[in-house]
Amino acid sequence: MISVATLATMISVSSLGEANASNTQWVDPFIGTGGDGHTFPGAVVPFGMVQLSPDTDNPMRGVSPQPEIYKRCAGYHYDDTTIVGFSHTHFSGTGHSDLGDLLIMPISGKVKTNPGTAKDPDSGYRSRFSHDQEWAEAGYYGVELQDYNIKAELTASARVGMHQYTFKNGGEGHVLFDLTSAIYNFENKVIWSDIRKINDTTLLAYRATNGWARNRQMYFAIEFSQPIDSYRFINEDNMRYRCMGCLGKEKHSTIENKAVKMSAGKAIKFVASFDNVENKPLQVKVALSAVSRSNALENLHAEIPHWDFNKVRKAANSQWASYLDKVDVEGTRSEKRQFYTALYHALQAPSLYQDVNGQYRGVDGEIHDGKGFEHYTLYSLWDTYRALHPLLTYIDPDRVSGMIQSMLVHYQQSYEKMLPIWSFHAHETWTMIGYHAVSVIADAYLKGIRDYDLDLAVEAIINTANNPVYDAIPEYKQFGYVPMDVLPESVSITLEYAYDDFAIARMFEAMGKSELAKQYYARAMSYKNVFDPQSGFMRGRDSQGRWDPDFNPFKAKYMGPFTEGNAMQYSFYVPQDVAGLITLMGGDEAFTQRLDDLFDTPLSHDMIKEHEDIAGLIGNYAHGNEPSHHIAYLYNYAGKPWKTQQRIRQIMDTLSSDKPDGLAGNDDVGQMSAWYIFSAMGFYPVAPGDLAYAIGAPQTPKVTLKLANGKQFTTTAVGLSDANKYIQSVTLNGKVLERSYLTHDDIMSGGELRYVMGDKPNKNWGKAFKARPPALSKYQ
Amino acid sequence: MISVATLATMISVSSLGEANASNTQWVDPFIGTGGDGHTFPGAVVPFGMVQLSPDTDNPMRGVSPQPEIYKRCAGYHYDDTTIVGFSHTHFSGTGHSDLGDLLIMPISGKVKTNPGTAKDPDSGYRSRFSHDQEWAEAGYYGVELQDYNIKAELTASARVGMHQYTFKNGGEGHVLFDLTSAIYNFENKVIWSDIRKINDTTLLAYRATNGWARNRQMYFAIEFSQPIDSYRFINEDNMRYRCMGCLGKEKHSTIENKAVKMSAGKAIKFVASFDNVENKPLQVKVALSAVSRSNALENLHAEIPHWDFNKVRKAANSQWASYLDKVDVEGTRSEKRQFYTALYHALQAPSLYQDVNGQYRGVDGEIHDGKGFEHYTLYSLWDTYRALHPLLTYIDPDRVSGMIQSMLVHYQQSYEKMLPIWSFHAHETWTMIGYHAVSVIADAYLKGIRDYDLDLAVEAIINTANNPVYDAIPEYKQFGYVPMDVLPESVSITLEYAYDDFAIARMFEAMGKSELAKQYYARAMSYKNVFDPQSGFMRGRDSQGRWDPDFNPFKAKYMGPFTEGNAMQYSFYVPQDVAGLITLMGGDEAFTQRLDDLFDTPLSHDMIKEHEDIAGLIGNYAHGNEPSHHIAYLYNYAGKPWKTQQRIRQIMDTLSSDKPDGLAGNDDVGQMSAWYIFSAMGFYPVAPGDLAYAIGAPQTPKVTLKLANGKQFTTTAVGLSDANKYIQSVTLNGKVLERSYLTHDDIMSGGELRYVMGDKPNKNWGKAFKARPPALSKYQ
Repeated sequence: MISVATLATMISVSSLGEANASNTQWVDPFIGTGGDGHTFPGAVVPFGMVQLSPDTDNPMRGVSPQPEIYKRCAGYHYDDTTIVGFSHTHFSGTGHSDLGDLLIMPISGKVKTNPGTAKDPDSGYRSRFSHDQEWAEAGYYGVELQDYNIKAELTASARVGMHQYTFKNGGEGHVLFDLTSAIYNFENKVIWSDIRKINDTTLLAYRATNGWARNRQMYFAIEFSQPIDSYRFINEDNMRYRCMGCLGKEKHSTIENKAVKMSAGKAIKFVASFDNVENKPLQVKVALSAVSRSNALENLHAEIPHWDFNKVRKAANSQWASYLDKVDVEGTRSEKRQFYTALYHALQAPSLYQDVNGQYRGVDGEIHDGKGFEHYTLYSLWDTYRALHPLLTYIDPDRVSGMIQSMLVHYQQSYEKMLPIWSFHAHETWTMIGYHAVSVIADAYLKGIRDYDLDLAVEAIINTANNPVYDAIPEYKQFGYVPMDVLPESVSITLEYAYDDFAIARMFEAMGKSELAKQYYARAMSYKNVFDPQSGFMRGRDSQGRWDPDFNPFKAKYMGPFTEGNAMQYSFYVPQDVAGLITLMGGDEAFTQRLDDLFDTPLSHDMIKEHEDIAGLIGNYAHGNEPSHHIAYLYNYAGKPWKTQQRIRQIMDTLSSDKPDGLAGNDDVGQMSAWYIFSAMGFYPVAPGDLAYAIGAPQTPKVTLKLANGKQFTTTAVGLSDANKYIQSVTLNGKVLERSYLTHDDIMSGGELRYVMGDKPNKNWGKAFKARPPALSKYQ
Repeated sequence: MISVATLATMISVSSLGEANASNTQWVDPFIGTGGDGHTFPGAVVPFGMVQLSPDTDNPMRGVSPQPEIYKRCAGYHYDDTTIVGFSHTHFSGTGHSDLGDLLIMPISGKVKTNPGTAKDPDSGYRSRFSHDQEWAEAGYYGVELQDYNIKAELTASARVGMHQYTFKNGGEGHVLFDLTSAIYNFENKVIWSDIRKINDTTLLAYRATNGWARNRQMYFAIEFSQPIDSYRFINEDNMRYRCMGCLGKEKHSTIENKAVKMSAGKAIKFVASFDNVENKPLQVKVALSAVSRSNALENLHAEIPHWDFNKVRKAANSQWASYLDKVDVEGTRSEKRQFYTALYHALQAPSLYQDVNGQYRGVDGEIHDGKGFEHYTLYSLWDTYRALHPLLTYIDPDRVSGMIQSMLVHYQQSYEKMLPIWSFHAHETWTMIGYHAVSVIADAYLKGIRDYDLDLAVEAIINTANNPVYDAIPEYKQFGYVPMDVLPESVSITLEYAYDDFAIARMFEAMGKSELAKQYYARAMSYKNVFDPQSGFMRGRDSQGRWDPDFNPFKAKYMGPFTEGNAMQYSFYVPQDVAGLITLMGGDEAFTQRLDDLFDTPLSHDMIKEHEDIAGLIGNYAHGNEPSHHIAYLYNYAGKPWKTQQRIRQIMDTLSSDKPDGLAGNDDVGQMSAWYIFSAMGFYPVAPGDLAYAIGAPQTPKVTLKLANGKQFTTTAVGLSDANKYIQSVTLNGKVLERSYLTHDDIMSGGELRYVMGDKPNKNWGKAFKARPPALSKYQ
């Protein structure tokens, strides 16, 4: 494989036609496309509605084994050797999936209309490809489709994907639209679809799918750079409607008659053919809308009114540059590639879900006017409240306000009067646990990001945290914990509710709502109610107060008391009161030992085999899944920051690289990437809403953040090397910093955080000043 | 069976609580529910969006034999003895079907959730009923559900159906919603559906079906008069989505969790249960919208904000009275019952298809604001252009303008740039032939009804009549006829295009567009090109000019040259130039003989067995289908009006009654009824757009039309009796009328048309003055 860095240079010189000094040159969209990173390599702009990317296989659920399906959550997997086509919607890094809307495949020669199999690519329209002839950069993807001798290139604006197909064989060319193709596809996933030719260069299409989101609506407007010379509708739907009163009268009995240039049903394909594709590349623009065909067409004309592919590509790249150039990283090639690619992955979602005219589809299924704010979708909140959303507050506070306003209208429009849990494309999937939207709002509010409806925010937070029908909130309030006989995952739910309540309390306290704040600070102590002093672990407990008799701290079991985790991991989930947890666990030394046990005790696959998400293991620590993400930082709280430094390096060395399989598990819509970015700078938001960051160990010699307030905050790691992983001392703007935490103000005031690194731990640094005790303690 | 007239009195006194002097008392909604009339007996207001009516069976297509299905185009058939439930959308009198949205069934005792079979009613939730305990009037329907001892009553406003269920057993009561039930149902007809409980008295629901209309959208808002005490969602959909990544985690894997009071999928039912239905009837209001759930809710609250069932019933009845009392009929009970019921059936469609906020769904599938006009759907134009639309110009010219504006926006919104053909609920079904919307527009325009976009009307007419892809318009223009090797039904299509072109010519002539008018007058002569002088019949002809070698004038064959008819019938389809046709057929005597042959030559079933629509036979004359409707009037044009008089009486005597099976064939959305109304008054619009009416023979002693211009037009048939069926003489406002036709002005000027009837034909009356030669001739 040709080195991607070389490629980046090649592309920037040969294709963009100018030297590209932007940090976008370090982005390698292939990082995370191997292993179980579940990222995609295609073209996207920051927070774009379109994610135009190759799908390398679409194994059918119910037919193919689950690992084959799981592997292709993002449509593409680096191991694959064939490309089925290019589709316009993808999740980045999820552990469950959907989307893959409107798959398009350029074809030369004989037209096959089924994808065929990866084992026998000639059996279908898919094409072989090689990573040697595959290129990706921020906002661009290109590949040689070997079976067709076609170079396919993709770029995108926010709502429009643009394809450029160079048919090297010349002569006749075809473009296949397969409306049956989908990610996590299964029989009957397509509820309805249609495609219509409205003139010689324009198609309109529609698809409703029943997947992770139910009855998800997507409309498409499609334009070609040259007129279609001939075309073919393919309707493979056995159930298509026939008029029984007019036997055999095909003209009237199917919609595909001479007047109606349309096909509709559950298994529709369309082939556009062009007599001559020899002289210049064939281009296709595809705009999305969740509202209507006419909105899709409006989006198309508003965003890409021309046929200059390179202009779109440059614009996409500049949009990325405008974000990535806000951060200057000094370090090795690998460090830069990892850092900027992490940042690239962190800025993909929540994604825009609104048409240029302001309309969007709400979670109530209705069309709304989103005047006055940008509407976003895709809230994988159980993952992203931890570090991704806190990170975005630095990168783009305006967009954070839009995201929060979007969550608030979701609350208003939801029939259950709930902030989003795991929501996308106008649907709440109710996946995962907690009500972590409150953490995102509180964190942003406390950081001064307040350009959304504040009264509505308070209402939404209170109603969400007290919703009488969601999971087991009434029981949580009644018992102080979620009884395991009421709901599975009861311990995890209790612990995460308690953290969320802390975030609420912090926000209400800052708003001067002391009584309310007190109430939520009290709820935030609920974690104590599931701590079993005898075993020393968080443990399932029933409504009679009895501890789970089936307890095994290593076991992660579906429908057990923990969510994608075991008691070894979840017992550390008290980010809001680590001091209190240390006390419960017997003090600093015992706590430190428990952390070491976590990292050092092997975990047999047998204990976690029910969870494909528990990955990236160091002992029982699972870096590939979110419940572990804060844990390495907890040594700080026991006065052992050098152990945090050691663990962070251990994680970085063993579980992160700039290779396609460089992510230790699902990127989870940017959360894993956000962990990387914070950790590389040397600090991490253990408890968002606390406005404090535990200092870990910098992994990058120098990082400068250009903050939205015009200031700059720089981290410098003097002497950082493979050996020098330990902090010897720290200064902030020249002043010695003994405490092992940073505050939000420290960062926002700008200046330089200077770490001096060495190969031996300085066990005294940060010891006297434990990580900041959260505000919680004063209410206890 | 209790006499319906008695019932009408009973109801008006006992239920409406006052003597009802309105002509609505003569409406018997059961007329047409037997035989193949295909009308429904349920509750509807004039042109209402809701048609709330019992469905007596819903045999599945693909499982049940076609006659069983055809019989129940309107959901209800008078022969049936069980009621499956009450649904909110129905066609009146069609020969193909769809709809039956949101079936509701009140249940006492054990709840069954499948309909069961008519043969074994106890096998399902359906109930036995008897016509003895069944009542219907304009805007009201009631029935005793014997299996449940429930009296179910229905009434409606334009967009809301109201149910009243009296549970005579008291105790617990249930209401079942079966979202799988549909008219012309078949497996997979339901594309998607959902139902959601949003509070203790309110449900919202949605259904998309793929039937005659594809992917038809309907939203529902439902309110109960008392809180639901318990409820049950039933999801019988095997294909419902399960999260494969979260095996067994039902909470997250199906949408029916504690928080989400909703079920969604392709086979959804819902049971609302009420602990105590003893003290007062349970009432249910169901509002429709084709746009959204919130619009449905808005419609509900706007139209029926209260729980006074009788108030709604009275309002519905008054709306009917406001129309029916515009016409005073003197005659026998049977004549009145037939006349007013025909008028009732004539005023059901085109039906409103717009929400109270003005929004409607267009044929492009998009939501539009219908500000400034009322939007209508349901254009069965091949049927209704003949007499129904002309009739509406007298009854409600304002609404006619709304209907035309609706057809014009259909044209604008259609991707094919076509006026409607056979369109309903935002879908063009492309059923039947011709472009008869132009006839409706021209007829209205020529009558001075012009409150719509006139420029758009001209554009729409020209583009429709010259559409390059619809059927065989280019070939029609090229050859002067549609070659049979180009398209089936080529002769019928040629003949009907030619008539439509006449209507266009008349309108353009009136607009002063002489050149255009000339063009269309010329096209209107195209009928001559399919007249075979050798056989003397209209006959298929190929693009080489060769006549159909397989010709049999009696044969009606699918995919043959005629549409639901044979050459015997269709050879008379030149309403625009009967004089020219007479010449082709060899003069008055030969033509008269040909007409007699039509009526007197038996037609073997074998010749028409492929067409269930060809019904109501007198020889080869098929009163039950539209191509025959004008034919009895053609004797006039040959100077033999007495023969027209004879035939009209023959038709009335043998093919019309006030019994449930009183219609000789499908009412076809009011066309059959409109034929009755005109014919009963003694005249008929042979060629709409001609502004002339052939005089037939009055069948009712006296009819007074209260015209929209404030004038009255009265027909009086002096001496009319069983024997006295022949016109002896006619006076118009006291002046002798020798001509056997009326003009539009004759009617609109008001006054009295006085027929003197006798038992012998006066062969001299009207002989000298043949029915008015159409304007066409002067352009020949």
